Amino acid sequence: MNAEIITIGDELLIGQVVNTNQAYIAERLNTAGVFADRMTTVGDAEGKILSAFAEAWERSGVVAVTGGLGPTHDDITRACVCKFFGTDLVLDPQALENVRRIFLRRNQEPKKINEEQALVPRGCKVIQNRLGTAPGYFFERSGRFFFVMPGVPYEMKGMMDNFIIPFFEKIDTGLVIRHRTLKTTGIAESFLAERIGDVGSLFSAGSGVSLAFLPNSAGVRLRITARAPKISEAENLIRDVEKKIRDKAERYIYGADETELEEIAGNILASKKLTLAVAESCTGGLIADRITNVPGSSGYFERGIVAYSNASKIHELEVPSSVFEQYGAVSKEAAEAMASGVRIKSKSDIGLSTTGIAGPGGGTAEKPVGLVWIGYSDREKTFAQKFIFNGQRRIIKERAAQAALELLRRTILKLE
Amino acid sequence: MNAEIITIGDELLIGQVVNTNQAYIAERLNTAGVFADRMTTVGDAEGKILSAFAEAWERSGVVAVTGGLGPTHDDITRACVCKFFGTDLVLDPQALENVRRIFLRRNQEPKKINEEQALVPRGCKVIQNRLGTAPGYFFERSGRFFFVMPGVPYEMKGMMDNFIIPFFEKIDTGLVIRHRTLKTTGIAESFLAERIGDVGSLFSAGSGVSLAFLPNSAGVRLRITARAPKISEAENLIRDVEKKIRDKAERYIYGADETELEEIAGNILASKKLTLAVAESCTGGLIADRITNVPGSSGYFERGIVAYSNASKIHELEVPSSVFEQYGAVSKEAAEAMASGVRIKSKSDIGLSTTGIAGPGGGTAEKPVGLVWIGYSDREKTFAQKFIFNGQRRIIKERAAQAALELLRRTILKLE
Repeated sequence: MNAEIITIGDELLIGQVVNTNQAYIAERLNTAGVFADRMTTVGDAEGKILSAFAEAWERSGVVAVTGGLGPTHDDITRACVCKFFGTDLVLDPQALENVRRIFLRRNQEPKKINEEQALVPRGCKVIQNRLGTAPGYFFERSGRFFFVMPGVPYEMKGMMDNFIIPFFEKIDTGLVIRHRTLKTTGIAESFLAERIGDVGSLFSAGSGVSLAFLPNSAGVRLRITARAPKISEAENLIRDVEKKIRDKAERYIYGADETELEEIAGNILASKKLTLAVAESCTGGLIADRITNVPGSSGYFERGIVAYSNASKIHELEVPSSVFEQYGAVSKEAAEAMASGVRIKSKSDIGLSTTGIAGPGGGTAEKPVGLVWIGYSDREKTFAQKFIFNGQRRIIKERAAQAALELLRRTILKLE
Repeated sequence: MNAEIITIGDELLIGQVVNTNQAYIAERLNTAGVFADRMTTVGDAEGKILSAFAEAWERSGVVAVTGGLGPTHDDITRACVCKFFGTDLVLDPQALENVRRIFLRRNQEPKKINEEQALVPRGCKVIQNRLGTAPGYFFERSGRFFFVMPGVPYEMKGMMDNFIIPFFEKIDTGLVIRHRTLKTTGIAESFLAERIGDVGSLFSAGSGVSLAFLPNSAGVRLRITARAPKISEAENLIRDVEKKIRDKAERYIYGADETELEEIAGNILASKKLTLAVAESCTGGLIADRITNVPGSSGYFERGIVAYSNASKIHELEVPSSVFEQYGAVSKEAAEAMASGVRIKSKSDIGLSTTGIAGPGGGTAEKPVGLVWIGYSDREKTFAQKFIFNGQRRIIKERAAQAALELLRRTILKLE
């Protein structure tokens, strides 16, 4: 069953608010076998709202609308719904009771505009709102559904999770959909595509499977999507394609779905009972920040040194000043000395370091902006690897931090 | 001039990725006098893309499209643009040179699919992409404009900021709009609203001015918007409202528009020729990361210590172990000792520290999750301030980092 999602609100059209509601609704519907194929955002203007309703209702089995159900003058969605379905408003006693309950909890008396929130379009089915005063509702016409929900994210989520998703799970929509995202790093999108080869070798056209390449500063995500009549069939399709992709590109895949590289690396450190210390120059604390986003990281993360000045590299990390004189602060030798310095000083098992030129200034022909050396040291070996990253200062920091965590993961796991 | 924004990508329709691009484009166009009145998202499917193009181009003076310009099989936007405008592809030499430049920097040879990124629809005007391999482009037809940009956010932003906005600023669109955002921190939205009072005292209805409260983990932004026939009129309206707000809430306002607190604090340090060192426990490197996002921060940022273990607090920061025994690692005394320790050790003018419980575990009735002590030390004084932040681990880190930078700013400026 296909769906269109309509979000209403001037704040979205001027870019003041990022539209997280439509992503949430799409993701939830998707798991219940209802596939959004268009999302539309319009402002609080009757003509625009009615034409968006008409277009979507013409094309789709499910229309999901949010926003503009509040009590103030600029909330006109309810009036538009009445006009669209040629109906008027009627009081819903349960919604009224809910408004009064909410105000009672706040020790306040509801005003007239609050109680009017309990008016709903005649002929709709009401979706009660335990978390706010505006009820949702829906219309059914010949097996097609038109849902209306408030735009306050947690109220909308309550209705999606407690009413709309269970509602569709009881209906046989014919097809289920499952996704699996493999996360790669250290390989450009085009090289990854070449390595994986023709998608026809992964799955045949019409099998219900698709593959998407999604690049960002952390790497390229490979999203496998399967549609099938049964969950088990969709999962089998995905498992098969995942195996084929892994056969070709396993070495670049660090994780799957929502897992971040810092969790993967942290879990490896924890399971091997290894401790880590980090010495950062160009990444400026971003590696430590990411590592410490993981609950429990204090179990393996010993300390981080953000050695921005040469003095701090010398004093904190015991990098010999001759290294700077001979090779410069951005060099293989400096990265290695920083990694072993922080490891020895902190009595950690592993030291990890970065030194580079994040820009925008400071680059030379020989050492351009984007040049980064990443150093690794443990009891057996110390080495550094050279990278050249594209992008602006922040992007270079992000790419360098990601590359450092990946170098850590690969080295501990002894991947080539 | 009205605009429609079309974002393309299956990842948006399944809710895997929140659509931040459309908000960015809307916001930027808006400042240039181009008002989005509809946003549409469709998947990587030719029929859906072409019908979205046709509908938008029929209704709007400006159509802005992003997504689906990558080199892999699932990127079909360019082919759809060609079909829509009845044209074919032609090589753009400058775009080709850009592809080669980017690969050269990585010491790699571009492949055929990379070089094919330089093919653009015949008859378009090319928008060069300094940050990636896919060029953007636009068509002009009778004073109406159809823009196509890559979906990678920073590449799209580069094109918006460096090309499209300056382009529209040169065109007379009839009504100009100006925004001004005052950034506050350390005060809750409802208290700030109470302090500012009735908006009727700031501007009258129908004056073309509006005010929005936009809270996030860094604080509450106050956004003033003015529409007027001339830039100077809009700017005067804004200046007047800004003055009235500042009269009432100046002490909470640290900056305006896109400026981040780390830039403000960094500029103050630079202008006063002060150096800074940071000792972070619960913020885990986030303060150092933010400070080093600012170009030129190496001029005043001496070093950061992410002292996650007690051992590192003792050895790196010379916090006496008796402090931990007597008061615990999360205490006023520990924060003060960390701030003065990092200052003295690094020979910096100022030391800043954080110690707290970011959660989810580790809280007690006496020291709950969200408790953070922030310490400050200079040659004259050392003190620490207590905060209790709401939210999950990452939000607590963000709020604590923001509060630490604000404490730094206010203390150096001797604000009460």
